[in-house]
Amino acid sequence: MRALVAEAIGSALLLAVVVGSGIMGQTLAAGNDAVALLANALATGAGLLVLITLFGPLSGAHFNPAVSLVMAARGELPWPRVLPYLAAQVAGAVAGVLLAHAMFGLPLLQESQHLRSGWPQWLAEVTATAGLLLTILGGVRHARDKVPLLVALYIVAAYWFTASTSFANPAVTLARSLSDTFAGIAPADVGGFVLAQLAGAAIGGGLGGWLFAAEQDTAGA
Amino acid sequence: MRALVAEAIGSALLLAVVVGSGIMGQTLAAGNDAVALLANALATGAGLLVLITLFGPLSGAHFNPAVSLVMAARGELPWPRVLPYLAAQVAGAVAGVLLAHAMFGLPLLQESQHLRSGWPQWLAEVTATAGLLLTILGGVRHARDKVPLLVALYIVAAYWFTASTSFANPAVTLARSLSDTFAGIAPADVGGFVLAQLAGAAIGGGLGGWLFAAEQDTAGA
Amino acid sequence: MRALVAEAIGSALLLAVVVGSGIMGQTLAAGNDAVALLANALATGAGLLVLITLFGPLSGAHFNPAVSLVMAARGELPWPRVLPYLAAQVAGAVAGVLLAHAMFGLPLLQESQHLRSGWPQWLAEVTATAGLLLTILGGVRHARDKVPLLVALYIVAAYWFTASTSFANPAVTLARSLSDTFAGIAPADVGGFVLAQLAGAAIGGGLGGWLFAAEQDTAGA
Amino acid sequence: MRALVAEAIGSALLLAVVVGSGIMGQTLAAGNDAVALLANALATGAGLLVLITLFGPLSGAHFNPAVSLVMAARGELPWPRVLPYLAAQVAGAVAGVLLAHAMFGLPLLQESQHLRSGWPQWLAEVTATAGLLLTILGGVRHARDKVPLLVALYIVAAYWFTASTSFANPAVTLARSLSDTFAGIAPADVGGFVLAQLAGAAIGGGLGGWLFAAEQDTAGA
Repeated sequence: MRALVAEAIGSALLLAVVVGSGIMGQTLAAGNDAVALLANALATGAGLLVLITLFGPLSGAHFNPAVSLVMAARGELPWPRVLPYLAAQVAGAVAGVLLAHAMFGLPLLQESQHLRSGWPQWLAEVTATAGLLLTILGGVRHARDKVPLLVALYIVAAYWFTASTSFANPAVTLARSLSDTFAGIAPADVGGFVLAQLAGAAIGGGLGGWLFAAEQDTAGA
Repeated sequence: MRALVAEAIGSALLLAVVVGSGIMGQTLAAGNDAVALLANALATGAGLLVLITLFGPLSGAHFNPAVSLVMAARGELPWPRVLPYLAAQVAGAVAGVLLAHAMFGLPLLQESQHLRSGWPQWLAEVTATAGLLLTILGGVRHARDKVPLLVALYIVAAYWFTASTSFANPAVTLARSLSDTFAGIAPADVGGFVLAQLAGAAIGGGLGGWLFAAEQDTAGA
Repeated sequence: MRALVAEAIGSALLLAVVVGSGIMGQTLAAGNDAVALLANALATGAGLLVLITLFGPLSGAHFNPAVSLVMAARGELPWPRVLPYLAAQVAGAVAGVLLAHAMFGLPLLQESQHLRSGWPQWLAEVTATAGLLLTILGGVRHARDKVPLLVALYIVAAYWFTASTSFANPAVTLARSLSDTFAGIAPADVGGFVLAQLAGAAIGGGLGGWLFAAEQDTAGA
Repeated sequence: MRALVAEAIGSALLLAVVVGSGIMGQTLAAGNDAVALLANALATGAGLLVLITLFGPLSGAHFNPAVSLVMAARGELPWPRVLPYLAAQVAGAVAGVLLAHAMFGLPLLQESQHLRSGWPQWLAEVTATAGLLLTILGGVRHARDKVPLLVALYIVAAYWFTASTSFANPAVTLARSLSDTFAGIAPADVGGFVLAQLAGAAIGGGLGGWLFAAEQDTAGA
């Protein structure tokens, strides 16, 4: 029970940070999107490190259906817990978007007009999600106590090096379709992003499973 | 005694950083408020990590009446120490604002014209303060030696994701009403902010007390 | 085998971050090169910390022929492994540039027009590479578990303090000649940069070998 | 001997970072001084963390006559070593400025026209240097392995919250008078800054000596 509350609250706060800092950045930057994305990336990275540290011991701090599915496939999350996890993540993410809108005095429910589709964007999401899984699996294997830092820094980098600014998370993608602000994504484009993310999770989960397998531990320079 | 001096000096330096970096940012950014807030957030986060690390072992490094009250309610700060703590925090915070003004050659005492009120702002302060308490309580529970880092990063994120730029501290709010610069708040708006902060502290303290209770330690994925 | 895959994938992701964040920065910053370089430096530093942490235990996480050569000269990488390492680094780096181009919908193969030569630039590369080797050798000696952080922060600083923005890596230099974007370097200028980097690696390797020799461990203030 | 080389090389690289990133920032930012100072602060903080980690075990990594004098007064640096330390710091700092100029193709020796004087500036230097000593003494007392991080973050904050951008170092001040670039200071203003720094070091050393005295270790909330 507490694990599900942790997934829901963590996902809500994550989305409040992503969407809220996007609104603040876009408002203050007045057209300078590079500065807005810089603020958005720093706030998201800082928030992620805090949230994963706080909620990791309670639920694993997935906040992300793609991560929960890979963990289930690896036998690290019981399959019967997957659906409740996904429900908590989506519900929390939507609530976080509403909270961000309320704090900035905007309409609570919006429909994003931000078009994000096409092969380059989908390749970017495949890459972003595969990299996220590599980061998590490698981090758990080689530096378990640094996983919050590694995931946070990975996302900071991925906001900038992927053409899609790295959604890499189906619950986040769905929730961001409800916000017609800096971080939004048009509802019609959600499906393509989620498919790309699941493909990326499969690639990253498979590659990471091989690269960071414990039994191969004798490697080295 | 040394604890009270630590609270006073820490609060003074915190306010010198918040107000001083706001002045510097606004002066250099010449109207680009996003860059000014970026600098303000980085300086505040960096300063907080240093101050909490230095003064935590001496006084707990609250620098914040809302935190001291929650700690007292949890039995971690004796009630007779609360008033002296609050007095040290407020006196230090005011002194820090004067120091910032003096370093920049500005009038020592000012009256802020910066209006900050209305339900969105108050909701932002409730959220900001609740999140701060969650961060502190969860950090103490799960990563005690990382509390300075967690609080610093939380505030960096909260400067950007809350519509109020996250005061989250009654002593800071009061002191910032004495500065008609980037970080100021009109004196008439202090009351609403402080009430919102106390409400947020109660919510965050209660929720964190349940989520991060030691006896529930068997949870996990 | 796994070490070579780690060098190749790590080099590929490093170049995807360097080139991808350069493209994103230049696009969004719209002529404000300081903001673009700020984003480029932050993304590169964040990515480096993650990649070195993940792949260090597998291959040493060199991603850099100059580093592999110094390690071989120090007896820490067997000479027969040097050529395979270099091949993996170059192949990975080129693949990473192609990935970045594909994610942004740009022509996969390009020829950079970005001129970078002359004595100040070469001195900058000598300095950048010497400093990188000092950082690695001193870090391994005094703070082994912080090497990923130290290298990442060194590169963030070197992007700004060296006139060349610190390539400091022959494989990176070669790969960046294939990108006519923010991070590119004209093919004709690659030779000079690589020679300067090898000279810097020799200087940094020699100086670091003396300064951070274990047998002199009695020093101190 | 190796300690003196460490002080000289560390001071040289510190100045190369401070002056070099100032030149790069000013050049790229094209008049946006807030972005230039942001880059300057990040590069300096990143560089400081690396340099103190590398050279701390060899010489204490003072790179700063004010710090060496306080350490001597505390009995932690033998008085006969003070003059050699100061000479190494000044010689290194000057060499670092020349290196920065050479990398950017500028005249090696320059005379700064940057006026920095008056009571607000001097108060800023007193504050900056006192805060630096508090950070060092408190860090050594409460979090010895985090001193490089604490000093780096303190300087990042102090670049922004002090009106002088925090020189806080007589060797740095002297060397920066030789550079007519972003980080320069007019030679006629060096004396006032150095006096203010020595006053600040005395205040910070005294206050920190009392606050962070080991024998008072029973304090706490």
